[in-house]
Amino acid sequence: MIQKLIEKIQKTKAPICVGLDPMLSYIPEHILKRSFGEFGETLAGAADAIWNFNKEIVDATWDLIPSVKPQIAMYEQFGIEGLRAYEKTVRYCQSKGLIVIGDAKRGDIGSTSAAYATAHLGSVTVGSTVCRAFDTDFLTVNPYLGTDGVKPFVDVCRSENKGIFVLVKTSNPSSGEFQDQLIDGKPLYEHVAAKVVEWGADTIEGAYSNVGAVVGATYPEMGAILRRLMPHTYFLVPGYGAQGGTAQDLKACFNKDGLGAVVNSSRGIIAAYRKDAYAKFGAEHFAEASRQAVVDMIADINSVL
Amino acid sequence: MIQKLIEKIQKTKAPICVGLDPMLSYIPEHILKRSFGEFGETLAGAADAIWNFNKEIVDATWDLIPSVKPQIAMYEQFGIEGLRAYEKTVRYCQSKGLIVIGDAKRGDIGSTSAAYATAHLGSVTVGSTVCRAFDTDFLTVNPYLGTDGVKPFVDVCRSENKGIFVLVKTSNPSSGEFQDQLIDGKPLYEHVAAKVVEWGADTIEGAYSNVGAVVGATYPEMGAILRRLMPHTYFLVPGYGAQGGTAQDLKACFNKDGLGAVVNSSRGIIAAYRKDAYAKFGAEHFAEASRQAVVDMIADINSVL
Repeated sequence: MIQKLIEKIQKTKAPICVGLDPMLSYIPEHILKRSFGEFGETLAGAADAIWNFNKEIVDATWDLIPSVKPQIAMYEQFGIEGLRAYEKTVRYCQSKGLIVIGDAKRGDIGSTSAAYATAHLGSVTVGSTVCRAFDTDFLTVNPYLGTDGVKPFVDVCRSENKGIFVLVKTSNPSSGEFQDQLIDGKPLYEHVAAKVVEWGADTIEGAYSNVGAVVGATYPEMGAILRRLMPHTYFLVPGYGAQGGTAQDLKACFNKDGLGAVVNSSRGIIAAYRKDAYAKFGAEHFAEASRQAVVDMIADINSVL
Repeated sequence: MIQKLIEKIQKTKAPICVGLDPMLSYIPEHILKRSFGEFGETLAGAADAIWNFNKEIVDATWDLIPSVKPQIAMYEQFGIEGLRAYEKTVRYCQSKGLIVIGDAKRGDIGSTSAAYATAHLGSVTVGSTVCRAFDTDFLTVNPYLGTDGVKPFVDVCRSENKGIFVLVKTSNPSSGEFQDQLIDGKPLYEHVAAKVVEWGADTIEGAYSNVGAVVGATYPEMGAILRRLMPHTYFLVPGYGAQGGTAQDLKACFNKDGLGAVVNSSRGIIAAYRKDAYAKFGAEHFAEASRQAVVDMIADINSVL
């Protein structure tokens, strides 16, 4: 799967993914009004608004980008109806040829991680029928429980040609609280990085492994160290834009081949029309604002590569 | 919410929760046949079987127990239909007066954790309507992202009188890989424990905080240390029974007041009919086997308290 992502990145010349993390507050009034009119001010109404919002953004950007990263929490908060919008979004993006990175940060003891791997990447046999649930192309995974909690995801990567990104150094302000603590002279995230390399060793396709790492753009010095420690690991890089990471900060996450990282922007793209720079598009044309923000983001990142 | 759990524990004299983690392989043939007959060998068929299986177990055990812990991964693997069975199970258990601990191990950056907290413990406003999604009483939470990733859950505990259990020392074989690593001479799980105490300090009801800890029964020495470090923290203790933890191992997780821990058993209860000790009940009477297993588990644990 990592090769498929790389091919899409090379074709679009855009090492990015658009974070489809809709908040109700991002969705223009005219969409909310239509959905609430049809389904009421209910979870179903919210889910319908999210789906319509996503669809317009995907329609306006799919030809420019290799991948999207829907954050499942933003859908889960609207319960079953929200998760239906998540599933619909995943299917729609895949129908447009986009690689879908499910941002779910799942992780548990072995047998439970196996169920999560099934839910998001694999298949489950019901009677004699093979069924698939959310079926994204990649999934983000939390490593706190250690190897037996991650292994089931790696197994599914191998059997189904899928990929994962394991949290190594996250982009949030307090990520260092545990992740930066020194163990034998090295921060925890470096120990996790070493395990990620080990877990992924059997899943290498070409120059990169199907077991990637989440490395926040907000900590560029750490990104540089991790890049050296994990030459064959693709980085999923959150934190660009709204969270404060700049293109210059990202540079260190890339390898000399210009590959090795896919940079996410959520708010900066999907809520672009609310920023001064794109206000001229207006709420009615929010998706065109997103398209322009994608064009600008690609140029910004390519300027440092 | 922790007081409500304690009252239920005192009333039932049973510091336990039943892990409603159904695997299709646990479900007796007659239930599968009925559900597949109605819905086909589909995700909907699997979800219907799970729901019927759960309902019989709850009907056979609710009067003996204070709480249940559905593991959401086991439902998520059947997609939207599976999550509908999760929701139905949560509602049904609550209608029986049971405290429901959603075992979801969620955790992300602040704004995303806020969405998860909304999804599982809180409410979301759609237009001018307040809606609730999964609405469990407690949720398990992963601490790898640090304070800003946990804080939104704590905030919801406070505003909605709910509770969480933060992963401190998990029950799985490789939990030590990162959790046991020494930082300034103390294992990571003790550092997490200190944070759990801090996060929960504002949510104390009576002798205990609404911010609890997950402490595996499979590491009794560590349980004893954590018990001393966290006197006002309730422990959710997985690992009893099928994973190898014994009643003697659990003793250290309790305080001298006989409180402080709620012990989970999943397979040992819900798949009891498949064990030699309960085989006499037969698959048709699997729920009666579960009831007997609950009676035996309560006696076993109370024998060491």
